[in-house]
Amino acid sequence: MPCIGVLGGMGPAATVDFMAKLVALTPARRDQDHLPMVVANLPQVPDRSAAILGRGPDPLPSLQRGIDLLNHSDVGVVVIPCNSSHHWYAQLSASSQAPILHIAQACVRKVPDGGRTCVLATRGALASGFYQRELAARGIDWEIPDGEREQPLVDETIRLVKAGQPEQAGRRLQQMLAHAHGRGVEVVIMACTELPLAASHADTHGLLLIDSTLELARSTVDYALHAGWNHC
Amino acid sequence: MPCIGVLGGMGPAATVDFMAKLVALTPARRDQDHLPMVVANLPQVPDRSAAILGRGPDPLPSLQRGIDLLNHSDVGVVVIPCNSSHHWYAQLSASSQAPILHIAQACVRKVPDGGRTCVLATRGALASGFYQRELAARGIDWEIPDGEREQPLVDETIRLVKAGQPEQAGRRLQQMLAHAHGRGVEVVIMACTELPLAASHADTHGLLLIDSTLELARSTVDYALHAGWNHC
Repeated sequence: MPCIGVLGGMGPAATVDFMAKLVALTPARRDQDHLPMVVANLPQVPDRSAAILGRGPDPLPSLQRGIDLLNHSDVGVVVIPCNSSHHWYAQLSASSQAPILHIAQACVRKVPDGGRTCVLATRGALASGFYQRELAARGIDWEIPDGEREQPLVDETIRLVKAGQPEQAGRRLQQMLAHAHGRGVEVVIMACTELPLAASHADTHGLLLIDSTLELARSTVDYALHAGWNHC
Repeated sequence: MPCIGVLGGMGPAATVDFMAKLVALTPARRDQDHLPMVVANLPQVPDRSAAILGRGPDPLPSLQRGIDLLNHSDVGVVVIPCNSSHHWYAQLSASSQAPILHIAQACVRKVPDGGRTCVLATRGALASGFYQRELAARGIDWEIPDGEREQPLVDETIRLVKAGQPEQAGRRLQQMLAHAHGRGVEVVIMACTELPLAASHADTHGLLLIDSTLELARSTVDYALHAGWNHC
């Protein structure tokens, strides 16, 4: 029976948020209308951002073990609700029988044309540059937080969500959004799956926030409904 | 690498609630402190309550496929955040290498001595009687909802949560709790994992509610921390 494969645990709260969004987006009146899914929730995968920056162990072997586990469970598609992991997208795709949906592609598709756009992500994901490449391919100008004053607020937001303190994370994110709003940003891409968990506790200053978790969930539901996995 | 195995999807929102509770109960400051977990979210399993009552197809083969999938993923324990499925606990345990924690045992352990106690569950779970047996083993008197006036409110609560309408479900549960409170009940066991999702939208009339999802999550975290799976 084919189903959705989720490589999660990075972090675990973000995986739960992804699943909650996926369930809410599925048109269903009873259990049996929902989409089958196998979730490999593997929080012990080494820190992705640190590894990209050359400051920590390589997470690729752990990520590949997760991909293997999902493929052995006969999943028909794989999704990874962790943006930074997509630094290794090519290697993971090469080792997966099931196609892997790319979170940045799902997310950037929903960015409107025009409007100053800022990408919030881990330092590793920004250094990797896959969001910037997707945006450039669509002809969208992008900016990223100032490294000294703003990026530490993004780092702290992410750390606090991972530590189970979403309200405090929301206050940091709100400060970050105030900076962005102050310099004329109109669209903010939450290109880290911890950020939406903080955003629900923040005044977003009227900015248009694009939620990478939600957009990956939408793409996943579209894929699975098109494949008819709700009628297995 | 041993980890927690979750046989879920019955329903999917209840599985997400279980995972959220498990993540929140885990002492963690960063991703790597959390507990690894494989989740087989299989909403297409035929309706458990209907089958127990002889009104629908047997879910046991589907449940066993889920147990097999988890055992093939090297889980060290299995939990099933669906009460009615525990009607087949003996058969599932016999076919699982990993032990299966019993949701009713986890839950009944937290029922206080004394205090009139009412069990809310599907008609199938009540007919099966495993909650009543656990309570009797502890010497706790129990009652169940009146079949004509009250049980239909429980049925509707469960149906509405499964249909993605937790607020409306909360109104039905609140009516049920008003009946229970009116006849002197003090403790209510939410012996169906959809009920806690409705309870957060209900006035609970000062009743002590025991949440089977939360108690299974507690037992699971205790088991996994004791096994040291947060340090794999």
